Amino acid sequence: MRRFVIGRARTLLERSSSRYQQPNNPTYFLSSSSSRFFSSEPSMDSSDSSDFSLPVTLDSLNPKVLKCEYAVRGEIVSIAQRLQEELMTKKGALPFDEILYCNIGNPQSLGQQPITFFREVLALCDHPAILDRSETQGLFSADAIERAWKILDQIPGRATGAYSHSQGIKGLRDTIAAGIEVRDGFHCDPNDIFLTDGASPAVHMMMQLLISSEADGILCPIPQYPLYSASIALHGGTLVPYYLDEATGWGLELSEVKRQLEAARSKGVTVRALVVINPGNPTGQVLAEDNQREIVEFCRQEGLVLLADEVYQENVYVPEKKFHSFKKIARSMGYGEKDISLVSFQSVSKGYYGECGKRGGYMEVTGFTPDIREQIYKVASVNLCSNISGQILASLVMSPPKVGDESYESYRAERDGILSSLARRAKTLEDAFNSLEGVTCNKAEGAMYLFPRIHLPEKAIKAAEAAKTSPDAFYCRRLLNATGIVVVPGSGFGQVPGTLHFRCTILPQEDKIPAVVSRLTDFHKSFMDEFRG
Amino acid sequence: MRRFVIGRARTLLERSSSRYQQPNNPTYFLSSSSSRFFSSEPSMDSSDSSDFSLPVTLDSLNPKVLKCEYAVRGEIVSIAQRLQEELMTKKGALPFDEILYCNIGNPQSLGQQPITFFREVLALCDHPAILDRSETQGLFSADAIERAWKILDQIPGRATGAYSHSQGIKGLRDTIAAGIEVRDGFHCDPNDIFLTDGASPAVHMMMQLLISSEADGILCPIPQYPLYSASIALHGGTLVPYYLDEATGWGLELSEVKRQLEAARSKGVTVRALVVINPGNPTGQVLAEDNQREIVEFCRQEGLVLLADEVYQENVYVPEKKFHSFKKIARSMGYGEKDISLVSFQSVSKGYYGECGKRGGYMEVTGFTPDIREQIYKVASVNLCSNISGQILASLVMSPPKVGDESYESYRAERDGILSSLARRAKTLEDAFNSLEGVTCNKAEGAMYLFPRIHLPEKAIKAAEAAKTSPDAFYCRRLLNATGIVVVPGSGFGQVPGTLHFRCTILPQEDKIPAVVSRLTDFHKSFMDEFRG
Repeated sequence: MRRFVIGRARTLLERSSSRYQQPNNPTYFLSSSSSRFFSSEPSMDSSDSSDFSLPVTLDSLNPKVLKCEYAVRGEIVSIAQRLQEELMTKKGALPFDEILYCNIGNPQSLGQQPITFFREVLALCDHPAILDRSETQGLFSADAIERAWKILDQIPGRATGAYSHSQGIKGLRDTIAAGIEVRDGFHCDPNDIFLTDGASPAVHMMMQLLISSEADGILCPIPQYPLYSASIALHGGTLVPYYLDEATGWGLELSEVKRQLEAARSKGVTVRALVVINPGNPTGQVLAEDNQREIVEFCRQEGLVLLADEVYQENVYVPEKKFHSFKKIARSMGYGEKDISLVSFQSVSKGYYGECGKRGGYMEVTGFTPDIREQIYKVASVNLCSNISGQILASLVMSPPKVGDESYESYRAERDGILSSLARRAKTLEDAFNSLEGVTCNKAEGAMYLFPRIHLPEKAIKAAEAAKTSPDAFYCRRLLNATGIVVVPGSGFGQVPGTLHFRCTILPQEDKIPAVVSRLTDFHKSFMDEFRG
Repeated sequence: MRRFVIGRARTLLERSSSRYQQPNNPTYFLSSSSSRFFSSEPSMDSSDSSDFSLPVTLDSLNPKVLKCEYAVRGEIVSIAQRLQEELMTKKGALPFDEILYCNIGNPQSLGQQPITFFREVLALCDHPAILDRSETQGLFSADAIERAWKILDQIPGRATGAYSHSQGIKGLRDTIAAGIEVRDGFHCDPNDIFLTDGASPAVHMMMQLLISSEADGILCPIPQYPLYSASIALHGGTLVPYYLDEATGWGLELSEVKRQLEAARSKGVTVRALVVINPGNPTGQVLAEDNQREIVEFCRQEGLVLLADEVYQENVYVPEKKFHSFKKIARSMGYGEKDISLVSFQSVSKGYYGECGKRGGYMEVTGFTPDIREQIYKVASVNLCSNISGQILASLVMSPPKVGDESYESYRAERDGILSSLARRAKTLEDAFNSLEGVTCNKAEGAMYLFPRIHLPEKAIKAAEAAKTSPDAFYCRRLLNATGIVVVPGSGFGQVPGTLHFRCTILPQEDKIPAVVSRLTDFHKSFMDEFRG
């Protein structure tokens, strides 16, 4: 079967624009906006676009869409999916027997098991008809049954198949608000909660509200999770970068943020918001409380909305660091509703639960005037509501079983097992990276990623150039082809020009880690041998 | 408790713009874009915005957001939610004892029960640990257990908690494609399917791709489902209206479409796509096959993408009409991939299943060149994937139990019970509306709505003007306050200027229909008595 990618390449070559064909053009092929994505499963034969007389062309498409990039699901994943098909059809044809997806924070795809209690409750809410049956007592824990009844009672008409209030079911928001209060020690209003299909749609919603044109800027860390750059591009705004300091463990230096804010303003950009990802993605650092205070003060003084990506709040692996929500920090400084505009994003996809496929999450929206809140509600209402199972799960992760509940011990064992294993895996992989020639890697204090820096020999950089790709993408592709390990080139997240990195999740199951380490090590050694001086 | 709405009104009054205060301004208050939406549950006290020193103001907000309207969840619903709270807190204070939400196609919120087989499979997929247990045999039907196993086998690693391929799980798309083939008798490629969190995000995705600026137009029926106007506004495009002909049962006249297309082009608008809703929302008509052929031919010749909203494909109530997908029509005319660009939207929220809260749906995308498909895939990938339960449910509605399966008879009874009851309810309500003074109502051949036209006395229109609202909104608000019945003013969908309508779902359970009819009839009579000459 001829591949879609071939059709795409041909189309590109045939198009009048010849920027990819100029031998002296230093732009890496892969950093062009329109060449990153390949549908993994072609549905049409790969004939040229010129065969078609169809209305939609790249020239007529929304240029913001063309500009948008999302490396986490980019070209490297398409190659991996193709290799996976090869593995299934041609046994033994490749030098490895499985693809290890370390490109994305998707724990259950790598074998992590869901938390039993959460799934019991979800199943019972999906099919409440069995709640009264005697067999159910034998199949489900008593507190799961009780919780399912409680949740059903919170849903108007017990209708789990109905659209809910556009912010989410009120009773579930009450539960989430109570969970936030326990976490922070400060009041949380359930009407500040907007339940969403994961954190991504919530981020899009805020970008949609804040960005009118490219004159509106959003301060984002570099490296950043590419949802932010993608969303800013899709909404036509300007990403104003601030660089995290790799030398101080991906430190967030306020002087750097200030410098970038001023630079943007001097260019006529109105900076609307500051994105902070804590714990960091792809960088894994956990912010110190003092640093968070500075950030809050800065946003307040500069009139910036603080967009706090706190989806890794449960993922902290080092005893000397602790997660503090930005709302807790702001409230502890005495700042309330009228002082600072703050949005906190949370997701059921991360934490110890890792329920990515459920698409649940919420944003807590504080410090906006009533007329702006009305507009946020309106935008939420256009999509009616988020999925109810995801809403239920969001309420569960914010109110898990408590001491004394029938499920508590098994729940605790599952949770602690996952979190301590993640901590061990983070440490093992960090050590492994640091033992490689020309590689340095900061500690993953939290989140699910390592972001090692690689120093590649000049010859490798030249080879990448010849292959019309960036050196980090070149390295990652070679790694994939040799080992089946999928990581994402640092260029997908942004990095200080001249530096090279990749993002690798800490998510392969623990029994696979030794193989990952040895495959990585062997590959790196032979790569360096091949290209060394 | 002081109400949010008061704060909003005060804010509006204090703002320098005084357009709402000019007595001679004929603009209806409620048709202003920024005054339609009220958060039903205020979380802040209703002090003036001027008390705040917060960065985001209506002036700095994305004007596209301000422009967007979504009446189905607009002001009337906020009033209803407030009345519902009153009902709970002050028994007997209102002239009715429940709110009947006829504003939105949300069957399970009004008591419709989910299809048992679908829910059994969902529950088992949520908690596969019980699949092997002996008690499960007693609780679930054998074919539900079998189907759950089959679905789990289609999911890589059986991980229902993992992000899937951004188009949705391949095995589920295979099932959906097979279902479409059975429906249409033409080939369907699973790689043309994009699973989404309901149809709404799919529509947004296409609008995002097609609209670059207000120079891009989308032809939409008037009346239309306001998702379209909202989405076009959010993406900054131009809605090019074509009017359905009420006199011929909401007929779609191609001459009218052509006239509007030409008018738009003469104003410099590039029309990108034609939206057709079949069966119609809010209008309930089912297109005749000949009419569909004309539409296909027209789109092909004019180079328009045909955006076919086919979410009511299972909801046809009259024997003389049958649903035909636009893809079937196009293929039966001999038009293939290279002839016409066609997107068909489907949802698990409608049909006989009405699983709105599950947020499942898909779009079938045909007739786009590989480079455009790549861009569609990229946009899908930025949100990672749609929720897996919704994906599973979408596969189930496209492949329900078959003759011979254990669940078949009960499934068929549930399905036919719901559909025949909907048909009876549609007829009863249609007759009731037609018996009212000054009201005419076309038949609901399909979908879930009636869209009666109301002729109001001059005095009522004057009273509406005095109340700074549109006459249809005035009528609907009075109806709500008198009866607890929530319907949506026709102005939320668009209507021929000078005509007045409202949309009423046919979804109250059958035992409630007599009360709905008598309350409606009594209200209408006393309304007319009050305002007549």
